[in-house]
Amino acid sequence: MKGLFIKILLSLLLFTNVSVAADPLPSWNDTAPKKAIVAFVEQVTREDSPDFVPVAKRIATFDNDGTLWAEQPIYFQFLFAIDRVKALAALHPEWNTQEPFASLLKGDMKSALAGGEHAMLEIVMSTHAGMTTQAFEKIVTDWITTARHPKTGRLFTEMVYQPMLELLAYLRANGFKTFIVSGGGIEFMRPWTEEVYGIPPEQVIGSSVMTKYEVRDGKPVIARLPELNFIDDKAGKPVGINQHIGRHPIMAFGNSDGDFEMLEWTTAGTGLRFGLLVHHTDEKREWAYDRESHIGRLDRGLDEGPRRGWTIVNMKDDWQVVFPFEKP
Amino acid sequence: MKGLFIKILLSLLLFTNVSVAADPLPSWNDTAPKKAIVAFVEQVTREDSPDFVPVAKRIATFDNDGTLWAEQPIYFQFLFAIDRVKALAALHPEWNTQEPFASLLKGDMKSALAGGEHAMLEIVMSTHAGMTTQAFEKIVTDWITTARHPKTGRLFTEMVYQPMLELLAYLRANGFKTFIVSGGGIEFMRPWTEEVYGIPPEQVIGSSVMTKYEVRDGKPVIARLPELNFIDDKAGKPVGINQHIGRHPIMAFGNSDGDFEMLEWTTAGTGLRFGLLVHHTDEKREWAYDRESHIGRLDRGLDEGPRRGWTIVNMKDDWQVVFPFEKP
Repeated sequence: MKGLFIKILLSLLLFTNVSVAADPLPSWNDTAPKKAIVAFVEQVTREDSPDFVPVAKRIATFDNDGTLWAEQPIYFQFLFAIDRVKALAALHPEWNTQEPFASLLKGDMKSALAGGEHAMLEIVMSTHAGMTTQAFEKIVTDWITTARHPKTGRLFTEMVYQPMLELLAYLRANGFKTFIVSGGGIEFMRPWTEEVYGIPPEQVIGSSVMTKYEVRDGKPVIARLPELNFIDDKAGKPVGINQHIGRHPIMAFGNSDGDFEMLEWTTAGTGLRFGLLVHHTDEKREWAYDRESHIGRLDRGLDEGPRRGWTIVNMKDDWQVVFPFEKP
Repeated sequence: MKGLFIKILLSLLLFTNVSVAADPLPSWNDTAPKKAIVAFVEQVTREDSPDFVPVAKRIATFDNDGTLWAEQPIYFQFLFAIDRVKALAALHPEWNTQEPFASLLKGDMKSALAGGEHAMLEIVMSTHAGMTTQAFEKIVTDWITTARHPKTGRLFTEMVYQPMLELLAYLRANGFKTFIVSGGGIEFMRPWTEEVYGIPPEQVIGSSVMTKYEVRDGKPVIARLPELNFIDDKAGKPVGINQHIGRHPIMAFGNSDGDFEMLEWTTAGTGLRFGLLVHHTDEKREWAYDRESHIGRLDRGLDEGPRRGWTIVNMKDDWQVVFPFEKP
């Protein structure tokens, strides 16, 4: 009896949602990707569907850089790292001669980035240590609420993709739990993902430094150590998903070859699965880059994705709006 | 308008819960611990309370061994490990002379356990590797649905504490997200915690081995490697909580000194906090052990817990029912 009552209430809730927002994805053009997303969600949520998936198993994972927010001219966390190097330079005179700090301080990005993505991640991680998690959270929050994108002058949290915000909300309204699975630092993202994406800290997976629990003058803290713990990129993404979620996602969203294994792992599971790659093709409203880019390189995914049944979003054609600030 | 409608529906739902189950904790005697739990939950959930905590921040963490299910005569996962050693012995003739396998196979538990808890955990972890996560999940599921407790003859999933099952449900009904934070293996628990405790895999934190993503004959797998990744015990528990949840719990439940730091970390946060230790004092219905026990040793917590404002459950006096199978 109580079960029935709850069912009726939930149906009313669902009905209310539907009537209020007829099109849950208004910033998506009515092209193939939107149709594929909606068709998939209907197939896994309709109780009489052969592909029905119970709510507990509706797990969707999203890359962050280039998938939920922009990543040009360089990963935003790296801009944060540069600002940290500048802020701390007075305390570290040795940085004037020590690479990559010397190049960063001179504004010579090219030399600082010579080591590639992995080196970049290591630089980020090692400049993010030596404080407590609480102190780091404050540093991130101060930066993210004030720092501005070098090209658009916008806050970085404004450089998020409106179609993806709608997609996150749409999936959650359909019983999905949405997770971030990013190569970015887990504690760089957590202070703001709930407010910006509606994704709580416990659903954020990322790269991390080693940490240590200590009691300092009677006050427990978690110290961030200058040692990498985990790189949540490429083949690390399925490992991070398994470690944090413990089950297969049924949908995965990315934009670069760093997401290939996440999509491969997700779409290899039994039952209906969905993989999507955002192809950055819009040099007017955003950026256009793929196979040759040092940031968010998309090469293998472009070749193999379609063969594997993954949806490729052509940003230029498939997104009516890119950033929220474009909306009329 | 829609917000109001949802609020009314949620109030109706809440009211239904209340009217159906007037006492959400019937297996708890009406002693101090129950009163403290109910008073705390009311203080953090009443919107007009100065200690009100929004739903997103209602995080409660539970140790597993000795807190949610029994742990005598030895951690159940260790009984699983012994069964695994026996099952695999034919493939490992070297185990007949190699410790701790030789002692285990001879049934000499004392020698096998000579290395203490940390060694035990290492033994468990290293005997749990060399297969995919999928294969391991099947091995665990096969065992947990058939193996029996050496003393009671019950399935291990029947050796859970009825008062704690009620507590988990009570907290969730009050908007809490419940997590397991256990020294036990994360992938040993995940296959059954959702059914037994209502805790989904993504809310289970535990010890782990290293894993590796591979594509074998075109099929992606995650391989379990014979190398420890993380020990989620003692000072590791706050680290695990930070890694997986990314924010402070407001309630923590344990039973041994392995939970001390989790309770310390939880109750050190700002705002109203709650820590509870289960003291095993009932040799008739369960077991009685504390300061001198090799399993679930509780010494520092007994001394410092009350001074720190933690609630100590005296199992004999505070629990009307221990195991679900006792219920009339």
